[in-house]
Amino acid sequence: MTNRDIPDDMPSDLEDKKKRAEEWFQSLRDRICNSLEKLERELTGQFSNFSAGSFVRTPWEKPGGMNGGGVMSVLKGRVFEKAAVQTSTIYGEFSPEFRREIPGAEDDPRFWASGISLIVHPQSPHVPTVHFNTRMIVTTRQWFGGGADLTPMLAERRTQSDVDTQTFHKAFQYVCERHQTVADYPKFKKWCDEYFYLKHRKEPRGVGGIFYDWLHSSKEAGGWEADFSFTQDVGRAFDIVYPSIVRENFNKPWTDKQRNAQLVQRGRYVEFNLIYDRGTIFGLKTGGNIESILSSLPPTVKWL
Amino acid sequence: MTNRDIPDDMPSDLEDKKKRAEEWFQSLRDRICNSLEKLERELTGQFSNFSAGSFVRTPWEKPGGMNGGGVMSVLKGRVFEKAAVQTSTIYGEFSPEFRREIPGAEDDPRFWASGISLIVHPQSPHVPTVHFNTRMIVTTRQWFGGGADLTPMLAERRTQSDVDTQTFHKAFQYVCERHQTVADYPKFKKWCDEYFYLKHRKEPRGVGGIFYDWLHSSKEAGGWEADFSFTQDVGRAFDIVYPSIVRENFNKPWTDKQRNAQLVQRGRYVEFNLIYDRGTIFGLKTGGNIESILSSLPPTVKWL
Repeated sequence: MTNRDIPDDMPSDLEDKKKRAEEWFQSLRDRICNSLEKLERELTGQFSNFSAGSFVRTPWEKPGGMNGGGVMSVLKGRVFEKAAVQTSTIYGEFSPEFRREIPGAEDDPRFWASGISLIVHPQSPHVPTVHFNTRMIVTTRQWFGGGADLTPMLAERRTQSDVDTQTFHKAFQYVCERHQTVADYPKFKKWCDEYFYLKHRKEPRGVGGIFYDWLHSSKEAGGWEADFSFTQDVGRAFDIVYPSIVRENFNKPWTDKQRNAQLVQRGRYVEFNLIYDRGTIFGLKTGGNIESILSSLPPTVKWL
Repeated sequence: MTNRDIPDDMPSDLEDKKKRAEEWFQSLRDRICNSLEKLERELTGQFSNFSAGSFVRTPWEKPGGMNGGGVMSVLKGRVFEKAAVQTSTIYGEFSPEFRREIPGAEDDPRFWASGISLIVHPQSPHVPTVHFNTRMIVTTRQWFGGGADLTPMLAERRTQSDVDTQTFHKAFQYVCERHQTVADYPKFKKWCDEYFYLKHRKEPRGVGGIFYDWLHSSKEAGGWEADFSFTQDVGRAFDIVYPSIVRENFNKPWTDKQRNAQLVQRGRYVEFNLIYDRGTIFGLKTGGNIESILSSLPPTVKWL
């Protein structure tokens, strides 16, 4: 499901809007990092004898001959074995091999991109793994993209009827319905299911969520402001719903067998990211910041 | 480095030769499995309180609508955390997307392929990980391919001057020099270094070995018989040199720090296989036997 024919009406005051988007992604990063650190402190169950973790930030710049840079924020803690939150704003020119793949870059290869991306790998197999990202892109066109998807690690809870799954879906359904001039929940939900699918195993990565790309709404629908406002609410919703799901599960004791099932399920995450994920493959091929791109890989994994 | 212009002089008695190659790959599999099981029994160092492992064989057939099948032989033991040896003989037609990529398949998509492939992930970080494979392919052309490469897991031993590296290289240099009408050691060694390279990290996967493909020698050089004889000796050399390297290292005690370094280095193996390895990607895209293709992935892995 794609819609890459983005209208060429560019928003007015584009430089100001780029700044607002970048600042939003950074403030959202701060907010999410605080939420995850709070969960680290709240733990009373298994592993609460260890210290609560906090984020360590590592700035980087000028990936692969481009301009700009980003900050990699990584927490290795007692609730989250690894939580990696990336913010970046980069600009430059696409290499010839990418120009035809990117809307609006065919004739003019210049681009600007800013966004936030995160993946969380909890210690407890009861706590789902999650991925979230939102971004604003500018070529000769302009659009937003993003999404969030949940992966419960235990097979018996990786179902559509599970309470965590339902809570997660409801949060993003609510956001899409509040922004119905620009957001189409059934479309974005289906897009997520289709994108996060391991073809070689004929299985979904998790239980889904939402995924959207090339979002550039008409003036009548609210234009850039409406798309930005929706993108902000997707971030705010994530920052509410994921911590609430963590809190429901993080104090439950787990067995070695459950831990093992989690480590094997993490292998699917590795397979997805290295074989299919457009962001990962794009980053690796364009000489992006390797440490930052691969920070999404799980800290410990098993293949049977 | 490629040479895909394979002459169209097909060997006589091709059906007989296919049978001989297939039988060889299977007998080599038996021989290598025996060698690895012997090492399992010989261990006297760390983990020798556990039972020696042995191979479990699982046959499979008709991958992705093609004909033929194979046997997956997997050992999970005390010397080898996981050793997976695959033999297969498959035949059928390449799907349209692959025809242009395969020599001799442009106009006639029928193919036959038989081979052996293995990857060994030892328990001890002192014992190098290894990959080996050889295969015979028939389209409207016919050729052999194969190779072996070694990956010492500790950085201080992952060097060209290390004794294991030198032993490994010497074995395959000897084989190539014994078959000099068909095998070019400097070329095959360089090809290995170029193939097993992680572009995104700008680092080699291990210390190399040999790699060859599209091997179809002229009648003057000995033709099919010479290529087959070389391919057999590559297998025999592997079955001598790798057990000898294991034996040099497998009784040395190791530390948690060394084990950790090994688990992180294994991540590079995963990255290589899922991002670059032609065999893996080809198998996943053609609906091959997933369990067999991904059996090469390490049992336990860490990303920092």
